[in-house]
Amino acid sequence: MEKPVELVLPDVEAPVLIEGYPGIGLVGHIAANFIAREMGMEVIGHVESSFLPPMALIFEGTPNPPLRFYGKDNIIVAVADVYVTPTLVNEIARELVAYLKEHDAEKVISLGGMGIGMFKEQMDVWGVGSSEEEKGELESAGIKVLQYGSIMGISGKLLLEAKKAGLKGYVLLGETFGDRPDPRAAASVIEALKKLTPLEVSTEPLLREAEMIEEQLRRMHAQMEAARKKTEKEYESVYL
Amino acid sequence: MEKPVELVLPDVEAPVLIEGYPGIGLVGHIAANFIAREMGMEVIGHVESSFLPPMALIFEGTPNPPLRFYGKDNIIVAVADVYVTPTLVNEIARELVAYLKEHDAEKVISLGGMGIGMFKEQMDVWGVGSSEEEKGELESAGIKVLQYGSIMGISGKLLLEAKKAGLKGYVLLGETFGDRPDPRAAASVIEALKKLTPLEVSTEPLLREAEMIEEQLRRMHAQMEAARKKTEKEYESVYL
Amino acid sequence: MEKPVELVLPDVEAPVLIEGYPGIGLVGHIAANFIAREMGMEVIGHVESSFLPPMALIFEGTPNPPLRFYGKDNIIVAVADVYVTPTLVNEIARELVAYLKEHDAEKVISLGGMGIGMFKEQMDVWGVGSSEEEKGELESAGIKVLQYGSIMGISGKLLLEAKKAGLKGYVLLGETFGDRPDPRAAASVIEALKKLTPLEVSTEPLLREAEMIEEQLRRMHAQMEAARKKTEKEYESVYL
Amino acid sequence: MEKPVELVLPDVEAPVLIEGYPGIGLVGHIAANFIAREMGMEVIGHVESSFLPPMALIFEGTPNPPLRFYGKDNIIVAVADVYVTPTLVNEIARELVAYLKEHDAEKVISLGGMGIGMFKEQMDVWGVGSSEEEKGELESAGIKVLQYGSIMGISGKLLLEAKKAGLKGYVLLGETFGDRPDPRAAASVIEALKKLTPLEVSTEPLLREAEMIEEQLRRMHAQMEAARKKTEKEYESVYL
Amino acid sequence: MEKPVELVLPDVEAPVLIEGYPGIGLVGHIAANFIAREMGMEVIGHVESSFLPPMALIFEGTPNPPLRFYGKDNIIVAVADVYVTPTLVNEIARELVAYLKEHDAEKVISLGGMGIGMFKEQMDVWGVGSSEEEKGELESAGIKVLQYGSIMGISGKLLLEAKKAGLKGYVLLGETFGDRPDPRAAASVIEALKKLTPLEVSTEPLLREAEMIEEQLRRMHAQMEAARKKTEKEYESVYL
Repeated sequence: MEKPVELVLPDVEAPVLIEGYPGIGLVGHIAANFIAREMGMEVIGHVESSFLPPMALIFEGTPNPPLRFYGKDNIIVAVADVYVTPTLVNEIARELVAYLKEHDAEKVISLGGMGIGMFKEQMDVWGVGSSEEEKGELESAGIKVLQYGSIMGISGKLLLEAKKAGLKGYVLLGETFGDRPDPRAAASVIEALKKLTPLEVSTEPLLREAEMIEEQLRRMHAQMEAARKKTEKEYESVYL
Repeated sequence: MEKPVELVLPDVEAPVLIEGYPGIGLVGHIAANFIAREMGMEVIGHVESSFLPPMALIFEGTPNPPLRFYGKDNIIVAVADVYVTPTLVNEIARELVAYLKEHDAEKVISLGGMGIGMFKEQMDVWGVGSSEEEKGELESAGIKVLQYGSIMGISGKLLLEAKKAGLKGYVLLGETFGDRPDPRAAASVIEALKKLTPLEVSTEPLLREAEMIEEQLRRMHAQMEAARKKTEKEYESVYL
Repeated sequence: MEKPVELVLPDVEAPVLIEGYPGIGLVGHIAANFIAREMGMEVIGHVESSFLPPMALIFEGTPNPPLRFYGKDNIIVAVADVYVTPTLVNEIARELVAYLKEHDAEKVISLGGMGIGMFKEQMDVWGVGSSEEEKGELESAGIKVLQYGSIMGISGKLLLEAKKAGLKGYVLLGETFGDRPDPRAAASVIEALKKLTPLEVSTEPLLREAEMIEEQLRRMHAQMEAARKKTEKEYESVYL
Repeated sequence: MEKPVELVLPDVEAPVLIEGYPGIGLVGHIAANFIAREMGMEVIGHVESSFLPPMALIFEGTPNPPLRFYGKDNIIVAVADVYVTPTLVNEIARELVAYLKEHDAEKVISLGGMGIGMFKEQMDVWGVGSSEEEKGELESAGIKVLQYGSIMGISGKLLLEAKKAGLKGYVLLGETFGDRPDPRAAASVIEALKKLTPLEVSTEPLLREAEMIEEQLRRMHAQMEAARKKTEKEYESVYL
Repeated sequence: MEKPVELVLPDVEAPVLIEGYPGIGLVGHIAANFIAREMGMEVIGHVESSFLPPMALIFEGTPNPPLRFYGKDNIIVAVADVYVTPTLVNEIARELVAYLKEHDAEKVISLGGMGIGMFKEQMDVWGVGSSEEEKGELESAGIKVLQYGSIMGISGKLLLEAKKAGLKGYVLLGETFGDRPDPRAAASVIEALKKLTPLEVSTEPLLREAEMIEEQLRRMHAQMEAARKKTEKEYESVYL
């Protein structure tokens, strides 16, 4: 192997690449894996590199590489189960955009989270496009356009490489608290994604999962509150 | 030497590779070394690399390289006596599968442990195959198939490389407590291995070794318990 | 990509390069970004390297690389939003001077700060030229010439490379306290720069910004002083 | 220089290489340097590498490289005055064996120590040979053959490389306490060496040196013991 | 740039290289810079490397590279203002000796200090030559010849490379306390140097500088002594 990174990917004509590497709130990771599973996608390729940890992920009894591509029709979903170093991220992004360019890709869309450290009634999804045209599309689709900020990791690099190559590139960032995995933000990001590229995926299961987690947290909180009140009363009855 | 890693291995036709590098409970290490010794195998090759520690292991007065291959008929057993860095693991796995492919290998089987942090009446052995076919064989052989999990190190990488190369690949993981060398788990793994590839090896010696270790631990435990009770009694006779 | 660093820059004839990478008091950074914004410059290029952090900076809804070039007419402004390692700095400086030489550059001017750890009535700007000729120009322009000292980072390396290549090179360093961003020092540096190369930029907005920051600091200081005096009085009325 | 390590060595026909790099008890180091000095050997070569510390050792007013070769007739003695990193050790061993092979070497013998953490009436010397033939020679010479153990560093790597190349290779390890330089162990190792290859060297001076060191230690010990007893007596006369 | 280090140096016929990189007591550094200044030398070249810190040193308003060469007639003086890593030192020494060999150099002389941790009436200068011939010259010139020791850094490596290349090489080491810059040792080293190669330099200014520093230290010491005595007296008058 000559290059530090090699893409093992079949020829997909006019592909749409959806990237969901791990990041804040695991939003992109959850969303991308959910899309691959719900759409019944197959693993069609992976990233090969001596600088990735040697490791096989077992799903349904089958081994999978840690950085892999799911595919169906012209949709390719890129997911990762390990942390990737900055230098490798740069190499992967460059190889990916070279592949996309060569195969006349339609577009490349990165999914991720934006940590806001609080909860709001309406957690928004923010978009960035690689040029004015994509920015306009985001606005037309009713997605808020991020004016100032920074996008770290492969999402940021893919966006820059897409811009340089004249590819249509987008990043969608779901607002999330930031300290826990957030399936609700993943669902919001998928809904925004569906406005940019038609996907037959219902986010209902993700929302139900989110509700279950939230219900659990609510119950834990109520129990802790009750316990606190009981202790307070006992204390008062003794000392006051 | 051009490549970071070089296999020094004679031509073995239609080989079966059994890998037992060190890992949890040293299960694969113990099992592979036991097979090599019991079957009277010779050292037939080794891994050469400037990035491995300079070191000779002396067995029965003869020097051996730390990463070496034992062989007999078409069986090759790969063992290691040192920790190998992730990047080297990737290179070794790739070279090994290239060698196996070139020599029309029958199969490659990795042996290892799965730390479960407890003892059960029946400590199981779990298997993973490189494709549906191998998964079926594991099931036919009565070996439980691991549905979800991750396999780190050379076992995981060999499995992925085998899958990519269209080689028959398997990983067998013996359940083990995880904090001590476990010859009993090694014996279980060898019994499972014998269902996949015929080997004339009795695991009786390993089980006897395991029993000796367990008997020792039991005696130590009984002595400690007796000492504890005596102290308790003395304490009670004085204070109660 | 063969080289560790690659300049992506269009052909600009007889360019004037203004460099403002981050440093003490962020003087060069503030000055260079201000010039680019006030003169309505476009991003015309960037530095490409696998050894830079993967990252897109979003300004006005548009993604930008962390090391980029703004341009208008024959002016090129080089800015950075991340820390660059010494080895990369050397490579970038070398590539930049090769580009400038090839395009018959007029001059290269680095902007930065000089930490003096105090405030003076008149915070000076110091200049260094790549040869006697440039030193004379600085003196003619009424800019104090730094006699002894050291210039770290890309400013120092660009000056040396310019000298070696026979290019007109200058460094302008604005005196600054050193522990905070200093728009006033940036304004002073821009005023000195305008004596070396004609730029239609008013530093009024920078000075207003500086005054606002200073006014805020003054008010904070007054409130703290008042609070201190009140506490002192209360203390005296009680104990004395 | 293309390779990380380069041997600068004249052509010596049918050489016998004696290696004494630093290790436990400095046994090999002391022995090899003693042989070179006593036999009146000249520096005939050295190891050249950018990855060794820049450094000249001055002996009798003459500069010497830290990794050098002494030679006389067909004897080559390899010594080192600095720690060598594992990767360089591997490269050096490989280059050395290539040189030896090319010059039809008779044999390569490594000298070193084996830390046993105690003193015995008879401190033994253990030997390891690269194959059954050399093992037999060691036994015939009355040298105990090490059955199990590990040999770290260049001695281990040279032994393995010699075995691979079909060269006659030996390691001689003198038992030593392990926490101090041990000229007596060095003398024992040289006596064993003389059984493998005829050398006109008397180890008398080394033994005298050892006796002087031991006498000094004995005197120090006696003084400390006397002081301890005196203190004890004074204590008793006061308190008892 | 292909090589890690590149010498930028004009052709000087039959050059004499004087090296004064930083080391103990900054003796070589002070001596070499003093020679360059007193003899009115110009900067004629420098060492180019991406692995040196990016940095310009400003002297008399002019930028200079941190590793540079001063020259006049056939004298070249090598100085450094930064720490150079061992690997780069090796590369630089090798390139330097290649240059010297190619230009039929007369000799290469390294200047440095030898830390002795005390002051003597007569602080000596020690010399080492690359071969017996140079050793004889040192003795003829009345310079003590160092019999045993080690010379670290570029001085040691230059000496070895000179010896290997058949160039006349010398190291002159001035005894110095070791914990402070020592212009007096630098002066002694220059006086020794003048016996090896004719230089029109008076060390009077260095000695005056040394006297000033020593006078200052003496005064500080006297004041401290006086203060100590005063405190002692006050103490006695109160308590005794």
